[in-house]
Amino acid sequence: MTGKPRVREDLTAAAIALFLKRGYDETTVDEIAEAAGVARRTFFRYFRTKEDAVFPDHDDCLARVEAVLNVAAPGTPPLAAVGQAAHLVLAMFTDDPATAVKRYELTRGVAPLREREITATSRYQRVFTDHLHKRSRGGEQARLRDEVVAAAVVAAHNHVLRQWLREGGKDDAHARLDVALGAVTDVLSGWLDGRATGPDDPDGGDVVVVAVRRGAPMWRVVQQIEAATLP
Amino acid sequence: MTGKPRVREDLTAAAIALFLKRGYDETTVDEIAEAAGVARRTFFRYFRTKEDAVFPDHDDCLARVEAVLNVAAPGTPPLAAVGQAAHLVLAMFTDDPATAVKRYELTRGVAPLREREITATSRYQRVFTDHLHKRSRGGEQARLRDEVVAAAVVAAHNHVLRQWLREGGKDDAHARLDVALGAVTDVLSGWLDGRATGPDDPDGGDVVVVAVRRGAPMWRVVQQIEAATLP
Repeated sequence: MTGKPRVREDLTAAAIALFLKRGYDETTVDEIAEAAGVARRTFFRYFRTKEDAVFPDHDDCLARVEAVLNVAAPGTPPLAAVGQAAHLVLAMFTDDPATAVKRYELTRGVAPLREREITATSRYQRVFTDHLHKRSRGGEQARLRDEVVAAAVVAAHNHVLRQWLREGGKDDAHARLDVALGAVTDVLSGWLDGRATGPDDPDGGDVVVVAVRRGAPMWRVVQQIEAATLP
Repeated sequence: MTGKPRVREDLTAAAIALFLKRGYDETTVDEIAEAAGVARRTFFRYFRTKEDAVFPDHDDCLARVEAVLNVAAPGTPPLAAVGQAAHLVLAMFTDDPATAVKRYELTRGVAPLREREITATSRYQRVFTDHLHKRSRGGEQARLRDEVVAAAVVAAHNHVLRQWLREGGKDDAHARLDVALGAVTDVLSGWLDGRATGPDDPDGGDVVVVAVRRGAPMWRVVQQIEAATLP
């Protein structure tokens, strides 16, 4: 594999393949470097430890996520911007389905690797929360809402990613994420739209009459009301 | 401190105090045992590593959470049962505010300890998801919803816990959690109530007419509709 520009990706693929074949504890950095056709010192140019080699570049992705959120036009609904950011995170996996599926197989069986992934996820959630909070106008109450919304987006992302990985990395995970984020947005957007009035002015505005089918799922009702009450 | 029945708690308090005073890396198990007035071998009866000594007994708490969820009466709304479980987790901190506040100060500054806490949190979230999913009747769509709802409950719990810790562990964190869970339930209960009809039968049931103030926060609207459409 020497000479390819994707040294980092080759090292990751080699590390995951060896960990799966020989065991995580049993595999050395030298073996990974050899399998990827590079020198040991090249490995350490990309990764500090063999554990690092398993994961996609979360630092890099986190920086891109922050950049995307920072340049989001002020008119963009904060939940939409966070949704775009979630697609960026998902792309890190869907860009190389074969490696992503093997990594999933590996991390399921090795607790420290699984925990490492959980920690990485929490960093995205924190960045999402901060973006939502920067765009919201409240104090404590808004912070709770922003944390819950960020957690919901991350849960939707993880749900889609996990299903996609379990099914072998086929199909269009991004289309599925759109559907999942749509469901989450339907449920939560009311909470976010509530900003316009705020919890301290619940009686502002005039009255709209909506016919609601008894037993209809609430997300449909919310959709219906939103359509009727949009300024 | 010898002779007290709370050896575990004494060791945890001693470990946190020493880590804060001398540094995490610099403190040994022997020093912790000495500060708690017990032998080194007693330390290892309670903890495998000095890192373990920092945390409350998450294994024990997780077992209690599972027990509470398992015995929840079939008529209990799943979100209510999960809310009760969240109070159990919170109680682990509020039972000893002084230790909880010092632990928070410590974990904020030591990355491996913070990551350990994040991992513990993810285990509760998983148990909450499984409970919600056991009680729900759907496939894929229901799983997404149950994961998002569990994430929302955990986010609300963490929000309340963090605020309480930052303010020095005063006030009634459980009352605050009730308020936070109430807000989350208001927003999400429609999604959960939607189970009765299900996403494939959106047109079931008869029609209810509701007057909605334009600009009212959606959670209030949802409350209003729920009150009007309850069977």
